[in-house]
Amino acid sequence: MTIQRWKLTIEYDGRPFSGWQRQEVGIPSVQAALEEALYKFCQQRITLYVAGRTDAGVHARGQVAHFDLDYGDRPLTAYDLAKALNAHLRGVPVVVLQAEAVAADFHARFMAVNKLYTYRVLCRAAPTTYDRGLIWQIWRRLDVPAMQAGAVYLLGHHDFTTFRDSECQAKSPFKTLDRLDLEMLPYDGCGGIEIRFHVEGRSFLHHQVRNMVGTLALVGEGKWQPQDMQKALVACDRTKGGPTAPPDGLSLVRIDYP
Amino acid sequence: MTIQRWKLTIEYDGRPFSGWQRQEVGIPSVQAALEEALYKFCQQRITLYVAGRTDAGVHARGQVAHFDLDYGDRPLTAYDLAKALNAHLRGVPVVVLQAEAVAADFHARFMAVNKLYTYRVLCRAAPTTYDRGLIWQIWRRLDVPAMQAGAVYLLGHHDFTTFRDSECQAKSPFKTLDRLDLEMLPYDGCGGIEIRFHVEGRSFLHHQVRNMVGTLALVGEGKWQPQDMQKALVACDRTKGGPTAPPDGLSLVRIDYP
Repeated sequence: MTIQRWKLTIEYDGRPFSGWQRQEVGIPSVQAALEEALYKFCQQRITLYVAGRTDAGVHARGQVAHFDLDYGDRPLTAYDLAKALNAHLRGVPVVVLQAEAVAADFHARFMAVNKLYTYRVLCRAAPTTYDRGLIWQIWRRLDVPAMQAGAVYLLGHHDFTTFRDSECQAKSPFKTLDRLDLEMLPYDGCGGIEIRFHVEGRSFLHHQVRNMVGTLALVGEGKWQPQDMQKALVACDRTKGGPTAPPDGLSLVRIDYP
Repeated sequence: MTIQRWKLTIEYDGRPFSGWQRQEVGIPSVQAALEEALYKFCQQRITLYVAGRTDAGVHARGQVAHFDLDYGDRPLTAYDLAKALNAHLRGVPVVVLQAEAVAADFHARFMAVNKLYTYRVLCRAAPTTYDRGLIWQIWRRLDVPAMQAGAVYLLGHHDFTTFRDSECQAKSPFKTLDRLDLEMLPYDGCGGIEIRFHVEGRSFLHHQVRNMVGTLALVGEGKWQPQDMQKALVACDRTKGGPTAPPDGLSLVRIDYP
């Protein structure tokens, strides 16, 4: 008996799913879709361990999960594993971008040293068409330099209680935010603007990215001053933060390991 | 009675449509969706004149159409017209990005001096998820410099019969191609590559862009040499060209007027 640990890098369109985590039967989740594909591949009920659970409607371009597989003495290449899983995922908007054989002590969640999330916002009056569910639409222009100025107050090691969902199960509200950059791009030829938030850190509290983006949008709308971000942060009180941005614009883009 | 001519700049997700052109009842088209919204707005059966009819599954980020409206003596601003049409288009992936009051001799099709199309190609082994229907997936790497070298032979004024659909109704097969540039972008963190073709000219033959892209893909795959593009062009014979690329990757991005 030879057990091999495998690391999968996964892309998915979060729109049809209740999130990463397996729920009761009949509720579509990314985990269930992948575990079902694994079952079809090897007729074993295998549990996936994920780096970062994503909520309903949140997307991933580089999610990571690991699992152990006893494939007997038969040879199995990473390429063949990814190809087989993708064949069993046909028609489901989840794919394995890469499979890698890893050491038995690799852990997708505990060994992650950095995560990059991107949050997309569309500022224009006309509703979205091809990007529906993939971007947060705000009907008017946001002040991007003001939001960038406000974002700076959140960088570093802080108690992020103000940006933490009430159902968050993390033991500590302290996290280190390493990057919160805004990028501005033209979206169409009629003045539409896309704003991309690039957010990096080792780990995040539940809804932290969406709560930071939703609060920074208040700064962008001129309802808050940039320095109000600091007041909200030091208050350590969720009710002093802004609303939670919708899942649509959020993607887990990359996870780094040592 | 005051008749005003209006110009609309339109974005749509081509996936659910049989193309721009109105078909028999029950077949979804972009034209029918917009004319239906116009009818709901003013209770008049109005015909739209479009700059460039797009085929089934082809997208637009900057399609242009015009129409005449007798709105009596009531005032109507461009902003209110766009807003009203978008309200009637709710749930349909078609939006009016901009409405403009134009002179009575404006013509969306005949006055267009330049059109920009973009064609997106994804090169990777894993199937697409969130971009399904919005990009042409090719399973292996294409040689982009070779394709760019082949593209250069198509620039200028030529008989484009080789890249013309057999059902094309244009009177002449002569067109002037002003731009055919390739851009290469990383698509994901696992080696996926996106190639964007940017194609500009005053007007195009039916399927010309898709036939040029499909033929250049032969160069990218190494089946053709770049100079084979010239041989195909001068043959003036559709059977000497490559296959038609699928509609998925094609977007009509911008149309210029004097």
